[in-house]
Amino acid sequence: MDIATRVYNHKWKIDPIVRSLIDTDFYKLLMCQSVFRNKPDTRVVFSLINRSDKVPLARLIDEGELREQLDHIRSLSLSRGESTWLRGNTFYGKRQMFRPDFMEWFEGLRLPPYHLERRGDQYELTFEGSWPEVMLWEIPALAVLMELRSRAVLDDMGRFELQVLYARAMTRVWEKIEQLRDIDGLSIADFGTRRRHSFLWQDWCAQAMMEGLGDKFTGTSNCLIAMRREVEAIGTNAHELPMVYSALAEDDAGLARAPYDVLSDWHEEHDGNLRIILPDTYGTKGFLDNAPDWLAGWTGIRIDSGDPAGGAETAIQWWQERGEDPRAKRVIFSDGLDVEKIRELHGQFADRLNVSFGWGTLLTNDFRGLVPDDALAPFSLVCKAVSANGKPTVKLSDNPEKAMGPAEQIERYKRVFGVGHQESMDVIV
Amino acid sequence: MDIATRVYNHKWKIDPIVRSLIDTDFYKLLMCQSVFRNKPDTRVVFSLINRSDKVPLARLIDEGELREQLDHIRSLSLSRGESTWLRGNTFYGKRQMFRPDFMEWFEGLRLPPYHLERRGDQYELTFEGSWPEVMLWEIPALAVLMELRSRAVLDDMGRFELQVLYARAMTRVWEKIEQLRDIDGLSIADFGTRRRHSFLWQDWCAQAMMEGLGDKFTGTSNCLIAMRREVEAIGTNAHELPMVYSALAEDDAGLARAPYDVLSDWHEEHDGNLRIILPDTYGTKGFLDNAPDWLAGWTGIRIDSGDPAGGAETAIQWWQERGEDPRAKRVIFSDGLDVEKIRELHGQFADRLNVSFGWGTLLTNDFRGLVPDDALAPFSLVCKAVSANGKPTVKLSDNPEKAMGPAEQIERYKRVFGVGHQESMDVIV
Repeated sequence: MDIATRVYNHKWKIDPIVRSLIDTDFYKLLMCQSVFRNKPDTRVVFSLINRSDKVPLARLIDEGELREQLDHIRSLSLSRGESTWLRGNTFYGKRQMFRPDFMEWFEGLRLPPYHLERRGDQYELTFEGSWPEVMLWEIPALAVLMELRSRAVLDDMGRFELQVLYARAMTRVWEKIEQLRDIDGLSIADFGTRRRHSFLWQDWCAQAMMEGLGDKFTGTSNCLIAMRREVEAIGTNAHELPMVYSALAEDDAGLARAPYDVLSDWHEEHDGNLRIILPDTYGTKGFLDNAPDWLAGWTGIRIDSGDPAGGAETAIQWWQERGEDPRAKRVIFSDGLDVEKIRELHGQFADRLNVSFGWGTLLTNDFRGLVPDDALAPFSLVCKAVSANGKPTVKLSDNPEKAMGPAEQIERYKRVFGVGHQESMDVIV
Repeated sequence: MDIATRVYNHKWKIDPIVRSLIDTDFYKLLMCQSVFRNKPDTRVVFSLINRSDKVPLARLIDEGELREQLDHIRSLSLSRGESTWLRGNTFYGKRQMFRPDFMEWFEGLRLPPYHLERRGDQYELTFEGSWPEVMLWEIPALAVLMELRSRAVLDDMGRFELQVLYARAMTRVWEKIEQLRDIDGLSIADFGTRRRHSFLWQDWCAQAMMEGLGDKFTGTSNCLIAMRREVEAIGTNAHELPMVYSALAEDDAGLARAPYDVLSDWHEEHDGNLRIILPDTYGTKGFLDNAPDWLAGWTGIRIDSGDPAGGAETAIQWWQERGEDPRAKRVIFSDGLDVEKIRELHGQFADRLNVSFGWGTLLTNDFRGLVPDDALAPFSLVCKAVSANGKPTVKLSDNPEKAMGPAEQIERYKRVFGVGHQESMDVIV
């Protein structure tokens, strides 16, 4: 596959960006199955949020082209081979991870309509529908916007100029891989689907990791790439679950319980490496302090916001307080990683925990400095559940810069979950 | 075309390196036509000479693979499309550059046998036959040995490691092109066939030059690439002509005349930009001092050894002495060029002459420093006419490091051509 040639060809014919319903993150499918069982009728709205105002998406991306890409995604359905792979594969050592009733539903699924409107230099893009259906829009919507933005920037470049751009980007990724190779006992996965430069580029990065890191590369969050490249599909669960459960809570007591209800449902469905706590939705400290004892028996914790070393120390202390041995536990770091941070965190925690890394944007979209005006630098685009059955969702996380939701609800959540002062950290990607 | 994938594929099936009789330098065909007319029955021996002892070709390259490649070249004949291109094309503004009788002969040609023997860590590879037939072995023989050596070094590398190697090499070539782009009035051609890293790599470099340099890129010496990429085929004549003519001389007086006889034959056949003097075979200074006046009317001089700036000054002075205006003349630099040297020579001579550059090995084979032990660095391999009708050939050039031939004949030639002290210069490529 010659990426530069393919990008060049994009200039003269329409080329669908997302070509498969499983070109998405594995945890989306795991969560979808859980939602399909536990909350199938909840009406949820997902909305695109560009946290980087300086990237004027609506000036860069033609609305017609965006509609074509989104319409194409609505035409997709699960192919026979994809269904076979989901039904027949072993995920995290378990066969038939996906139940027959879920698979039958998924095989019949087409994604629900989208609502697109230009607002100044940004697009308002929302998806409304039943939760299990509408949640599957998140990753393809992000991937389409990211890649259309890449194409817009690349559009003026000559074919060999493009090839050299990719040559430089490949060299950069490979040099990162060469540095990671030297870390003993490293365990790292590709988590870069949502904010990738392009599909082909993510596929290239994943394959380079396979060759360059061998066993240290544990797999990819992207199901299509996992299937094609015959590596593990990696992922567990995300903020979406506690956000929607919490929005649905009838009162403050229900709200306080909601994040644990999520994991209680999850506990019934999954064991082993899928029992990973994502504790930061409404502040890690309070979440762990108030957690039921059975949660301390789970396999690990994913740290996705705030100071990662501080988060890992908090987790270690919590396990020790609950009589668990941290060395039998796993911590997954997945927020804003690059080589230096990975090396540092690994050095700090590898002999105290099982450490692994979900490496996202700076694996699959590190084009920083490669074109004038840094026009290909990654930026912070998200697509989040913003309401459930008409009630707004809230996310706090361990970094106030990542907080989302109406101001008065944020205050209420902070009160209910006992969140005090939080350190503010730049959100790069 | 994805070079890394192709190189990777070389590991598991035989892949011919030279696939066309016109995958050769244009001047070979021009000289061949001249020889076909003027000296068709001369028996000539060409021989491979590795001036870089430190590259143990016979240890790197399997004899069986080398034979397969050479045998494949013997199976080639001119294709219909190639013949049409040679017959129908305009070269240097002239239609029907190749005469019908020559084309008919060329269409029927198969290359004559080769003689291959291992001697220690080197191969002895010779070609014997009628001059017009055997001379066409030079370029494909060199290209095969260069590329088999590249493949031998690349053989242990993984697919993505290979891709990154090419990414680095592409970036390097592109950065050179970006520097050359800034030189006003530059005129540069690809002369890198014989010592290229590989065919696909030369093809990539030529295309990158097309895109990156626009009109500053005047064409390529490689006929196959010129045909496929629709650029000019570039070249005139080489040392081979005076070397064989001189070897055939009956006595010292004939020897002294031989280099001018060559150009007299050439003068009858060609005009304009093809009338380029290559004066250094037996020393530039003596050659020009003794040259007949009609030679000063030729279009230009190619400088292929010795100090290039000194050579250009000698040419300017000579033209002035003969009443010619150097600003109407062309000097082609073609020895050991890289970006710095090109920039320097251009700056020094562009307002005194028409300057152009034939950029060879450091365009199509600059893999210096990209693998351990610098095992892909270019090296100095040549394939030369070593005898004609049983008499040894001699080359002196303007650099004693490039002298070739039996010692006593070298002394005789120096005496006949009045060559005194010569500055020795390193031969890198």
